[in-house]
Amino acid sequence: MRHTEDFYPSRIGPGRGIIERIDPVIYTDIQHQPEDLSGKLKFFEENGYVIFDQLFLPEEVSRYHAELERLLADDALKNRDETIREPASNEIRSIFSVHTLNALFTSLSRDKRILDVVEAIIGSKVYIHQSRLNFKPGFEGKEFYWHSDFETWHVEDGMPRMRAVSCSIALSDNYVFNGSLMVIPGSHRYYVTCEGTTPKEHYKQSLKKQEYGTPDRQTLEWLVERNGIEVFTGRAGSVIFFDCNTMHGSNGNITPLSRSNAFFVYNSIENTLTDPYAGIAPRPEYIASRNFEPIAPQV
Amino acid sequence: MRHTEDFYPSRIGPGRGIIERIDPVIYTDIQHQPEDLSGKLKFFEENGYVIFDQLFLPEEVSRYHAELERLLADDALKNRDETIREPASNEIRSIFSVHTLNALFTSLSRDKRILDVVEAIIGSKVYIHQSRLNFKPGFEGKEFYWHSDFETWHVEDGMPRMRAVSCSIALSDNYVFNGSLMVIPGSHRYYVTCEGTTPKEHYKQSLKKQEYGTPDRQTLEWLVERNGIEVFTGRAGSVIFFDCNTMHGSNGNITPLSRSNAFFVYNSIENTLTDPYAGIAPRPEYIASRNFEPIAPQV
Repeated sequence: MRHTEDFYPSRIGPGRGIIERIDPVIYTDIQHQPEDLSGKLKFFEENGYVIFDQLFLPEEVSRYHAELERLLADDALKNRDETIREPASNEIRSIFSVHTLNALFTSLSRDKRILDVVEAIIGSKVYIHQSRLNFKPGFEGKEFYWHSDFETWHVEDGMPRMRAVSCSIALSDNYVFNGSLMVIPGSHRYYVTCEGTTPKEHYKQSLKKQEYGTPDRQTLEWLVERNGIEVFTGRAGSVIFFDCNTMHGSNGNITPLSRSNAFFVYNSIENTLTDPYAGIAPRPEYIASRNFEPIAPQV
Repeated sequence: MRHTEDFYPSRIGPGRGIIERIDPVIYTDIQHQPEDLSGKLKFFEENGYVIFDQLFLPEEVSRYHAELERLLADDALKNRDETIREPASNEIRSIFSVHTLNALFTSLSRDKRILDVVEAIIGSKVYIHQSRLNFKPGFEGKEFYWHSDFETWHVEDGMPRMRAVSCSIALSDNYVFNGSLMVIPGSHRYYVTCEGTTPKEHYKQSLKKQEYGTPDRQTLEWLVERNGIEVFTGRAGSVIFFDCNTMHGSNGNITPLSRSNAFFVYNSIENTLTDPYAGIAPRPEYIASRNFEPIAPQV
C-alpha cells in the first residue's frame, strides 16, 4: 500500500533535525483506567517508558529462562534466518520471531499482564510487529548505540505513525553494570531525523551494528541535558514498556553477569505497515511482520 | 637489585590459580586514627577500596578540570612518550607522570587530604609510583578489562609486596552509566596469577589494551559471586582509594557524558622496586618511577 504523506521523514539526504511528535503517547483516557494502572500510564506519558518490578514470578522466569537456554543450544536454530549469531564465536545472540517459533514464548507474548498495559497505551487491538529473544553474554557483551526504533520501523518497514510499544521482559537480573537497557526520558516527544539514505538489505548489517538511522551527537546531548538517562535495573521477571520513539541503547558488559530478555513489539491494528518510506523492499516477515491479525490476551 | 624470593609469582607459564594475600591491608593501627578516618579505614580493610564523597570543592575541581582541558589540547604534549593517544582519532586519552610535568597536578598529588589517607593505609612515608590524567570521551568510550594493578607492577616493575594504594580523583561527575570505575569488593585478599609470559616492551600495547596479565573468567566469576561489584559514582571532586591488588575495570560509554580523572599511585618507601619479576627490562620512568624520594603533604 502506498502512503499519501510522510509525517516523519528521515534519511532523505544530508539534512537532519528534530520534529515534534504529532501523535498521542497514550491512546486511552488515563483517568478511566484502574488506579494502579493510571499512575503507571501517567509516568509513561511523561517519560516514554515505565517499569513494572517483578511482574513475573521467579518460577515463571525460571521456565522461560530454561527454554531460552535450550533454544540457544539448539542446532536446528543455528542456521535459520531468524537467528543472529556473533561473527567471531558463531554463538547465538538473538532469535527473531520467537512468538511464532516457540509455543512457550507465544503464550508469553499474549500474557494478560502484558497485554492489559499494552492495550491501555495503544487504545485498540494490537498485533505483534516484531519479537525476539536476546542474549548478551558476560565478559564481552557488546554495546548497542542509541536509536529510536520508530525511525527504523517507519523508514524501513513503512509503519505510518507512532502507535506501537516495546516490551522487554528481563529473564536475568539487570544491574547498572551489566549492559542493561538505557533510555532517555522524554525523548519520545521528539523525532530525530537522521542523515543519509538507506542501502538495500540494510537489515542484514543493522541487526548487528547500526550505521544508518543513528541520531547525531548534538541532538543526543540535547536530549540528555534535558532529562538525563535512566537504566532499566531489577530482578529477573521485571518488565519495561517503552514507546516506539523513545531513544535507547546499552553499554557493553565486561562483568561476568550475562543478560537475557524476551522482547515483543506491539503495534495498533489501526497503524499497520505500508510500503517502507525509504522506497526499499520490505524487510523479511521475521523482522517486520505483515500478519496484522489482532492477538487476544491469554490468562 | 635482585630479589631473593617471589611471593606472588604470575605469568610463569600455563598454570594459573589464586594465592591468598600474605601482606596486611592497613599498615597502621586503625583504632588509633581519628574517628572519622578509622571508619573509612575499616571499610577499606574489608573491601579493598573506600570512597570520599566530594573531598574536593567544586571551585578546586574547576581549576583542575580547566588545566586538564588545556593539556589535552596542548600540541607540545601530543608527541611525548607520556601521552597515550587513541589510535583512530589521535586524540589524547592519558597523560602519564603528570605529577612531574605540571605544577598544578604536582600540588594535587601532595594534597594533605589525600596523603593523610594514604599514609594511614601504608603506615610509612610514600613516593609516587605512577600518575596520570585520564580522559574517557562520551559516545565512544572504550571498556577497560578487569585487572589487578599489583600483578602488573610486581611482574613488570618489580614491586615486591602489596603496600601501595591507588587514588582516583573524579574531575567530572561519575554516573553508573558513563563507564565509571568498577571494583570487586574483597578481591584485594586474593592474588590471581595469570597465564602466559610477558613479551618485551609489553607496556607499549598494554596501556591501550591489556592482553597479558588478565585474570581468567572462572576466577572473576568466583570473586564476583562472593561480593558483587561496586561502581564508583559521585560528583566531580569525589575520590576513591583502592588497594594495589583490588580487581577493577570499566565498561565502555555510549552516553554523551565524558569522564576524566587524575590518578596517583602511592607506594611505601619500604617497598621500593627491584628488578621486574618477569625478567624483562624495567618499564620507563614515566610509567614506573624509580625516584623513591618520599613526598611531603602540602596544605
